[in-house]
Amino acid sequence: MNTKNNNAPLGIFDSGVGGLTVVKEINKILPNENLIYFGDTKHVPYGDKSKETIIYYSKQITEFLIKENCKAIVIACNTATANAHKDIVELAKKFKIPVFDVITPVAEKVGLELNQKIGVIATKGTINSGIYKKKIKKFNKSIEVLELATSLLVPIIEEGLVNSDISKETIKYYLANKKLSNIDALILGCTHYPLISKEINKYFNGNVKIIDSPLIVANQIQYYFKKNNLLSDNTNKGDLKFYLSDYTNNFEKLAKKFFGNEIYLTEIKL
Amino acid sequence: MNTKNNNAPLGIFDSGVGGLTVVKEINKILPNENLIYFGDTKHVPYGDKSKETIIYYSKQITEFLIKENCKAIVIACNTATANAHKDIVELAKKFKIPVFDVITPVAEKVGLELNQKIGVIATKGTINSGIYKKKIKKFNKSIEVLELATSLLVPIIEEGLVNSDISKETIKYYLANKKLSNIDALILGCTHYPLISKEINKYFNGNVKIIDSPLIVANQIQYYFKKNNLLSDNTNKGDLKFYLSDYTNNFEKLAKKFFGNEIYLTEIKL
Repeated sequence: MNTKNNNAPLGIFDSGVGGLTVVKEINKILPNENLIYFGDTKHVPYGDKSKETIIYYSKQITEFLIKENCKAIVIACNTATANAHKDIVELAKKFKIPVFDVITPVAEKVGLELNQKIGVIATKGTINSGIYKKKIKKFNKSIEVLELATSLLVPIIEEGLVNSDISKETIKYYLANKKLSNIDALILGCTHYPLISKEINKYFNGNVKIIDSPLIVANQIQYYFKKNNLLSDNTNKGDLKFYLSDYTNNFEKLAKKFFGNEIYLTEIKL
Repeated sequence: MNTKNNNAPLGIFDSGVGGLTVVKEINKILPNENLIYFGDTKHVPYGDKSKETIIYYSKQITEFLIKENCKAIVIACNTATANAHKDIVELAKKFKIPVFDVITPVAEKVGLELNQKIGVIATKGTINSGIYKKKIKKFNKSIEVLELATSLLVPIIEEGLVNSDISKETIKYYLANKKLSNIDALILGCTHYPLISKEINKYFNGNVKIIDSPLIVANQIQYYFKKNNLLSDNTNKGDLKFYLSDYTNNFEKLAKKFFGNEIYLTEIKL
């Protein structure tokens, strides 16, 4: 049981701007919740770092969010989920804080609702862990899961080059890979990728179902909060606070685009 | 004074494949030297890592090369030079081993021989240090140095996407930056970039002088070895050994392209 006040904030983190796509959906579905976001822009991308390094940074951020009195934690990063989920849960458990991640609810939904050829694109760190295949197969043994590392996409998104000739050429290069031929659905296995989902959809001419996690995760959190009487009783809009380990123009631009100009943005040392 | 045997190997390192461009030139000019290369492919790119992290990895690699009995060390990485040069020199000094880097000789050559508008492209880590401007200005106060971070180029080269539509679009995007308008020469401030120097030259239609470091560095080493009686007295071709912290196809492909199929490639844990 969580012992926090219902109006304590929900803590969300990612390696960079990607997790903002998750914050956006949570804020839409649960507008009265206070949210704290931590973007580890200093160490992005996590995708090509070792498991040990990812665990180290993820635990530091989790500790920060616990100190900020968060009532729940969302790992809004696939690479951190694939590599550090167990360690984060262990740490949060000491404070009786529930942990949500961006892979489990997606794997469950896909495993239970689909029965086709499913592609997964993600960072090298997520793909090497094989976590999507493992989790989906738990729910559906006969489903075919085809995984592909698409290492350049996070650096391109962090550089602010969404909707550019560079993103277009890179998406074309990866999605033309033989591994993904004849897929029926594609999981965007990185919270950065919803930022280029329109471009991905355009590449497939709408013929492949695109599955991204932010809405699925937000729904799961709402369900859990209701069930466990954890919803905020704020009647006003909740506060949004953004922390990042290294200020970048692109982060500020995207955060303002999503949440308006009146946002509270702080750089802190991790 | 160095106390090693003249036939002890020369140790060269970089974050990934980039330093192979330096190995290639050293091997051409000093074909009898035994060379050991360490590519820290597990932690590439260094360009967006913190100074502390870069120092940590660079010192670990330097220790490895010292244990391998190297008579001299070449930091074939601009980011490591910009952030960890002092620490590496300090460590090597204890074993009386000289250290070469890829920035100092280039800055000296440019400062003494040119007097125009000089552009520098490099990783964020190198650009943020301002090292090129500082070093060039030591030799020539009136020269104008314009620096631009080009973060995507290393990930693209490490992904093996040289001479692709992606590299072409990315080069165009960066080089069209206002900062670089009207430059007379461009320093490739990253040892990865010689691998795309032809594409860069094509973008400028040959109207901008491209300055890359490998040949300049190799010449400096030859000069120092001659002067200090450190040249190998091998009459056969020297041995080439390649170590990498994470095996990648792209590394093997490039190493074989440069040095032939009979190369000795080992993955070791850093």
